[in-house]
Amino acid sequence: MPQATSPLLTDLYQLNMAEAYLAGGMMRTAVFEFFVRRLPPTRNFLLAAGLEQVLDFLETLRFEADDIAWLASTGRFSPRLLDYLSTFRFAGDVDAVPEGTAVFANEPILRVTAPLPAAQFVETRLMNILHLQVLVASKAARCVLAAPGRALVDFGFRRAHGAEAGLYAARASYVAGFAGTATVEAERAFGIRSFGTMAHSFIEAHASEAQAFLDFARARPEGLTFLIDTYDTEAAARTVVRIAPVLAAEGIRVGAVRIDSGDVAALAARVRAILDEGDLRDVTIFASGGLDERELARLVAAGAPIDGFGVGTSLTTSEDVPALECVYKLQEYDGVPRKKLSPGKATWPGRKQVWRRYDADGRMAGDTLSVAGDDLPGAPLLVPVMAGGRRLAPPPTLGSLRERAAASLAALPAAVRRIDAAADYPVAVGAPLQRLSAEADLWIAERRDRP
Amino acid sequence: MPQATSPLLTDLYQLNMAEAYLAGGMMRTAVFEFFVRRLPPTRNFLLAAGLEQVLDFLETLRFEADDIAWLASTGRFSPRLLDYLSTFRFAGDVDAVPEGTAVFANEPILRVTAPLPAAQFVETRLMNILHLQVLVASKAARCVLAAPGRALVDFGFRRAHGAEAGLYAARASYVAGFAGTATVEAERAFGIRSFGTMAHSFIEAHASEAQAFLDFARARPEGLTFLIDTYDTEAAARTVVRIAPVLAAEGIRVGAVRIDSGDVAALAARVRAILDEGDLRDVTIFASGGLDERELARLVAAGAPIDGFGVGTSLTTSEDVPALECVYKLQEYDGVPRKKLSPGKATWPGRKQVWRRYDADGRMAGDTLSVAGDDLPGAPLLVPVMAGGRRLAPPPTLGSLRERAAASLAALPAAVRRIDAAADYPVAVGAPLQRLSAEADLWIAERRDRP
Repeated sequence: MPQATSPLLTDLYQLNMAEAYLAGGMMRTAVFEFFVRRLPPTRNFLLAAGLEQVLDFLETLRFEADDIAWLASTGRFSPRLLDYLSTFRFAGDVDAVPEGTAVFANEPILRVTAPLPAAQFVETRLMNILHLQVLVASKAARCVLAAPGRALVDFGFRRAHGAEAGLYAARASYVAGFAGTATVEAERAFGIRSFGTMAHSFIEAHASEAQAFLDFARARPEGLTFLIDTYDTEAAARTVVRIAPVLAAEGIRVGAVRIDSGDVAALAARVRAILDEGDLRDVTIFASGGLDERELARLVAAGAPIDGFGVGTSLTTSEDVPALECVYKLQEYDGVPRKKLSPGKATWPGRKQVWRRYDADGRMAGDTLSVAGDDLPGAPLLVPVMAGGRRLAPPPTLGSLRERAAASLAALPAAVRRIDAAADYPVAVGAPLQRLSAEADLWIAERRDRP
Repeated sequence: MPQATSPLLTDLYQLNMAEAYLAGGMMRTAVFEFFVRRLPPTRNFLLAAGLEQVLDFLETLRFEADDIAWLASTGRFSPRLLDYLSTFRFAGDVDAVPEGTAVFANEPILRVTAPLPAAQFVETRLMNILHLQVLVASKAARCVLAAPGRALVDFGFRRAHGAEAGLYAARASYVAGFAGTATVEAERAFGIRSFGTMAHSFIEAHASEAQAFLDFARARPEGLTFLIDTYDTEAAARTVVRIAPVLAAEGIRVGAVRIDSGDVAALAARVRAILDEGDLRDVTIFASGGLDERELARLVAAGAPIDGFGVGTSLTTSEDVPALECVYKLQEYDGVPRKKLSPGKATWPGRKQVWRRYDADGRMAGDTLSVAGDDLPGAPLLVPVMAGGRRLAPPPTLGSLRERAAASLAALPAAVRRIDAAADYPVAVGAPLQRLSAEADLWIAERRDRP
């Protein structure tokens, strides 16, 4: 699959710090955690996603000869750093929340344990990969909750932010419960079923709408869907009724019609009536065009006879929330917990774990964030996934990740599942973590004031 | 540079339509134009960007043997289509508005003229590339207007939507007037100067803040910048004053300090005073942390003594407007203008040109959108850039694109330059285009009603 594997997809400051760590011999074990500081008001939960691409990145990260040559050519890096990078392999450990699991603010989604220069260096690209998929999976999960039982398809490659964004959005939305994507490369790369009909230009290029439909049907008889809003949606629906018998005689069945503009609820109702009267009760109605989870919920609540939806730009750019306040923070170095005190950005130090409790109905009842190794009721969310730079298990199938996501969404408390109202899920902080944080404050006071 | 070159980065419907066009022999010349339907309320103008990456895409688009083999393996495509794709080269013409030019709603930014299947097929990826760079360049231009004379640096790779988004954001913001980027690969790929300091984790990992500064300075003496907000910003500024003579004795000059949190305006004033009193008048102050163009304008208006800014997430995700309502529409096929009538989505048909007029002071006075070949006062914006699938000129330097962008921003009417108030720039529609549109309506009525 197309993949950007340059090790220079990183911030210059990572190389600066690596220089200083090597110069100072600061090679002891560091622990970093990736988490989201605060949830946006329109996200009651997040869905973990993107772990496999992070592990791919860590397993394959290498500086090839041309990378080293280019770095050397800038005259900005020491031979010591270039030597270090030329044999660099990520050989650390990773613990992570499995993809498809619901997560909340301050809960570590991924932990890296490695020698300080290595754990630090991977920050930039690791965040770049993980943020995007968590972002899109969380948006997609809201769409899935808004339109239960409907087939949702990712239509958003064209306005996704580049190739990787489009592909990872297809993957993340599929994990969250989408039925498929319009992006062909996502089918090849990830095995996600691709769907597609025709563009308005196809209708416009033909001498008549009926001729366009006939030409298309004969060329693409499988899963046949007609786009019916180019000129007049109801007139086009009547055209479909008129040509369906012609096609049936050729053994071609009309599968669906797609409406891409206008008052979709009203149009769908009228189109449904036209199709039903025309004896096309099996032809389904698919809607697209500027949809997001709120519009999906509105259409479902209005009882619009729509069987599936294409969701594009709002999904692949997570348009209402195009970025999460995610961070990758040093939590421990050389056995000592670390934190920063920057206003509004203070963090919980140390290696952490999240324990999740469920009620008798299997619904999530609350999480506790505490120190890893603590013994608390509930199921721990973070599990070891990589040791010594190697995956501990082969990549799971996307199907299994979809199953976990579906179970996660089903287990969310009712208030948290709502897409139209903010709800706080209870995340407690364990007493050992509170003690550790207070101790870290003392250590920092000492470090800061030392001359 | 890392680049996703798979021809399968496309919507399935492009392959569907190609099947039908080949089956129907619809190989005549089509004209498509890329434009933005409406500007968001917080964008008074857009900046054209990304053309060179579109031309790269068009020049190198190929279906390799493994692409064809995979398509064949799906069993969904005809031998005729696979044959066509296996020798496919884009051999069309492209006219475009040069990068760095201000553009407005409904103005074509790029026009493709090619046989229908080819002109249609390139839609998905072309939009994916061009949308992203127009989006980020337009956001970056607002930052540049908000902070005149300050050095702006792209800090946003980590939360950009994937690798390509991060790299293209570095390029687009540089074209718009940024001084550089933190992303190392952007320096290698595009020659954009990269900048970097250190992370909070670097300070936290050390036994003391002073020791962290000394270690860093000795390892990275060039362009030395200290991050001073990890624990207590003012205390850290005093530490810088204390260690500066030690470093000076070693021949190392402190270049700047960076503040990444808190009330940046107030902190910068106090830090400036501490540095000045400590005889460090030449040490500049750099600010970062959740900045956008509104915050830049606020800091500049408040007279905060800040010399440069790092702009991250808000830039690379165009956070307030993460997508533009851009489209790539069929305007003409086989010599006949085309348009669609979908509610709210009707378009101006035909091959179009934009003429821009200037007043005596060199400020933009108004544009006219009309039929290409019309003779109107002003400078035409679209110029030929590709013929027969080959570039008409080598790629321009980024420096020349920056110069054009700077001139464009300088020529904007005062109201349009404002980042805090909406303003409409006058775009008239020429009489010939209005006549053409009325005629197209008649042709459509005929096409639609034909049985």
